[in-house]
Amino acid sequence: MSEPSKKGITPRAADYSQWYLDVIAGADLAEHAPVKGCMVIKPYGYALWENIQRVLDEKIKETGHENAYFPLFIPKSFLNKEAEHVQFAKECAVVTHYRLKSDPDLGIIPDPEARLEEELIVRPTSETIIYTMFAKWINSWRDLPLLLNQWANIVRWEMRTRLFLRTTEFLWQEGHTAHANESDAEEETRKMLNVYQDFAENYLAISPILGLKSESEKFPGALRTYSIEAMMQDGKALQSGTSHNLGQNFARAFDVGFTDQNGARQYVWQTSWGVSTRLIGGLIMSHSDDKGLVLPPKIAPVKAVIIPIWKSDEERTRVLDHAKELHRKLSDNFSKVAFDDRDYCTPGAKFNEWEKKGAPLRIELGPKDIASDKVVIVERDTGLKISVGEHSAVNEVKARLVSMQERLFQKSKQFREEHSYRIDKYEDFSSRLESGRGFFYSHWCGNGACEKRISDETKATIRCMPFSEQEEKGECIRCKEHSERRVVFARAY
Amino acid sequence: MSEPSKKGITPRAADYSQWYLDVIAGADLAEHAPVKGCMVIKPYGYALWENIQRVLDEKIKETGHENAYFPLFIPKSFLNKEAEHVQFAKECAVVTHYRLKSDPDLGIIPDPEARLEEELIVRPTSETIIYTMFAKWINSWRDLPLLLNQWANIVRWEMRTRLFLRTTEFLWQEGHTAHANESDAEEETRKMLNVYQDFAENYLAISPILGLKSESEKFPGALRTYSIEAMMQDGKALQSGTSHNLGQNFARAFDVGFTDQNGARQYVWQTSWGVSTRLIGGLIMSHSDDKGLVLPPKIAPVKAVIIPIWKSDEERTRVLDHAKELHRKLSDNFSKVAFDDRDYCTPGAKFNEWEKKGAPLRIELGPKDIASDKVVIVERDTGLKISVGEHSAVNEVKARLVSMQERLFQKSKQFREEHSYRIDKYEDFSSRLESGRGFFYSHWCGNGACEKRISDETKATIRCMPFSEQEEKGECIRCKEHSERRVVFARAY
Repeated sequence: MSEPSKKGITPRAADYSQWYLDVIAGADLAEHAPVKGCMVIKPYGYALWENIQRVLDEKIKETGHENAYFPLFIPKSFLNKEAEHVQFAKECAVVTHYRLKSDPDLGIIPDPEARLEEELIVRPTSETIIYTMFAKWINSWRDLPLLLNQWANIVRWEMRTRLFLRTTEFLWQEGHTAHANESDAEEETRKMLNVYQDFAENYLAISPILGLKSESEKFPGALRTYSIEAMMQDGKALQSGTSHNLGQNFARAFDVGFTDQNGARQYVWQTSWGVSTRLIGGLIMSHSDDKGLVLPPKIAPVKAVIIPIWKSDEERTRVLDHAKELHRKLSDNFSKVAFDDRDYCTPGAKFNEWEKKGAPLRIELGPKDIASDKVVIVERDTGLKISVGEHSAVNEVKARLVSMQERLFQKSKQFREEHSYRIDKYEDFSSRLESGRGFFYSHWCGNGACEKRISDETKATIRCMPFSEQEEKGECIRCKEHSERRVVFARAY
Repeated sequence: MSEPSKKGITPRAADYSQWYLDVIAGADLAEHAPVKGCMVIKPYGYALWENIQRVLDEKIKETGHENAYFPLFIPKSFLNKEAEHVQFAKECAVVTHYRLKSDPDLGIIPDPEARLEEELIVRPTSETIIYTMFAKWINSWRDLPLLLNQWANIVRWEMRTRLFLRTTEFLWQEGHTAHANESDAEEETRKMLNVYQDFAENYLAISPILGLKSESEKFPGALRTYSIEAMMQDGKALQSGTSHNLGQNFARAFDVGFTDQNGARQYVWQTSWGVSTRLIGGLIMSHSDDKGLVLPPKIAPVKAVIIPIWKSDEERTRVLDHAKELHRKLSDNFSKVAFDDRDYCTPGAKFNEWEKKGAPLRIELGPKDIASDKVVIVERDTGLKISVGEHSAVNEVKARLVSMQERLFQKSKQFREEHSYRIDKYEDFSSRLESGRGFFYSHWCGNGACEKRISDETKATIRCMPFSEQEEKGECIRCKEHSERRVVFARAY
């Protein structure tokens, strides 16, 4: 490790956007690349992504899916095949040449002789290339269901970018499945949404709401899109995962058919679903505080850090020997425990740095602790500091990691509930947006034009039609027309 | 699983290239994508890559490296900074536009208004983008060594492609490190070469030779390149991993400096090293036979397959119940064991399919076996078929997987040794190439022009100057000038 940064964190109340960037910089998660809109994910940020990947990959495989890998490039003509989808795919990186050459006047230029006959686009999502292969692979009902997943990098040309939340290149997983009938496809779509919910709640300690997207917010080409929507600390929504029932739209466009058990030819029913490095943005904004990053223990790259404290050289040897032994003992039980023995930083600087990095527990060990067979444990989220017998350190760390995981989840859930409002007057809706923001459960007529008017006027969009809401007759908050149920409005990332 | 393919495998002796493609198709590892030069890695092939990744990733982390992620795109101007490197990077995909538009006459075209000011190239390797970041991150000797690795997709525009061996897009890991002095960099370069050797020998069961590349074959921009070179069954060499000591070339080009312990400013010393999905091509060509794929057990996605055998319905129930129980028992001990209970294929068709997929062991279970508390185990590589008591099935499977792993390695090693020749006459060299091929240990003067003449005349290149060779005075096989040691010539993939 190198020298700790002395840069502070802007408080949330002063400038929320700057706070977000400061938390990322303070924890050394990522930074802007020298390529417009792209980011560099630094080792500590990437370790977080690896933890996310490992857990999700296991859940995706447990539900019967296999991983595969499809090309980065998609021929331009593929985009054209599904009428709605092409709209989505237009903001993309276009490859036109396959060679550079040195020109005496212009320097290095794309070689005019190496222009591609058909341009390639860098995948903004992989439906078109994957379903071209599905059409070759699927012949009979015995080939169904086909349940695949891909971990990949994705490029969507974004004008306004933000680390993790919206970058030109990002990392994600995209599931793609084909089924023999509509109900199997719907079951798959909902099952994967539940996998995302389970992961968000039990690993990220985030409590999202689940629901159906409106027509204007669904994935282009899908029949129905479901999402999990999390609430950030500024009351804004973050769409954190989506699961699409694609019906037979892509199957028709790419001619993905099969012979059923009666020998008849049918189109397959398809789904796709994905989560991305955006989850890390959600993680940061759900739990962190004005001291820096706060991470749920289950997903934290470092569960605890041991910081030895000494003054004299004699103390240094004694404390380091003891701390090394403690590190060994804890490392046998937790993956992983850091041991910060840098001798060119003060303990105070180390406390500060590990707070910024969101290590769930800090373990302090000094000469007095050793003399009384104690260690000091400090919780990152509460700041609680306790002294415990060294022999019970392993159990104490275990118990505190478990309780912290649960506490962060409850806090996230409570925050969302406290910032969810049932609003029936459009004036309240607007004024509430000015003050605290949050999720607004309001009636809506179901009309896209009315939806657009509301979003133009308030910058709040329909996040979803939540599963949790019962049918309830009412009148649309904007146009007063008849409504069958409440939907959730919020400003969103 | 779907219906087994009935397509056979072309024998090696009849057409080695077609055999290679048939093995891949028969095992369902990968196929050509509808994008020129790209491949689709199918689930069984990707599972193989995941096994390779998991083991290598662990070894890379054990040796102190952390993973990170850098952008896919590299600004064109970055390539220009290192004089030799730019030559290498010219055959690449060039992104010139960031949007498509619909034109009434031309259909979908790159939007002329969305032309990039500076073109981006899709990374053909990441030295330039990574070292731009290193220059920002490294300030003091305390920041060294910086030991990073990246798992990523890479694009190099290739005119003649071949599944796994040479594809326009491929997957790889690339390590990038910076050190305070030359000897640390050299130690790192050799350490990672040894990691690749260890992995090749102990997991892939391949016995490569290690050595130094000649000037003409080294990585452009490197001081020295080391490689592991494996011998395929046709006697050709496959460069299977490279490790480069970059010296201070890139450090100077990208201004990667640090303040040393005396307060003086110095350039860092760098290394890079990588292996790719090419390893899968090497794996296929090292062990497979005319029946299809053969995989070393440690890296095989499926260690054993249970195939139940029955005739009547009554037998079916009894055999399947029994086989399910055996499957449970074996699955507790091995990851993973397949259970092929498809009732629309004959056992013979299943045998054939799993032979093509290279499952190390096949376990047959029929009514007679059950009656005598036996199972039949068949080894994929030797074809040996034995009947063992069911109670000892777990131990028997374990022992046979271990012995098969070792047997494949010894066979690979022996094959290489038997096809390595000490050749001192240029005539023998040429005639040997026509017949059997192999590795030729011959004297070479050290002159690049002479090296080129040999390769033009024989299509054999210097694979490496092997570590195993002692200094030995002699005369160059081509020009008869003085030589200090033998080098290895071979035709190569």
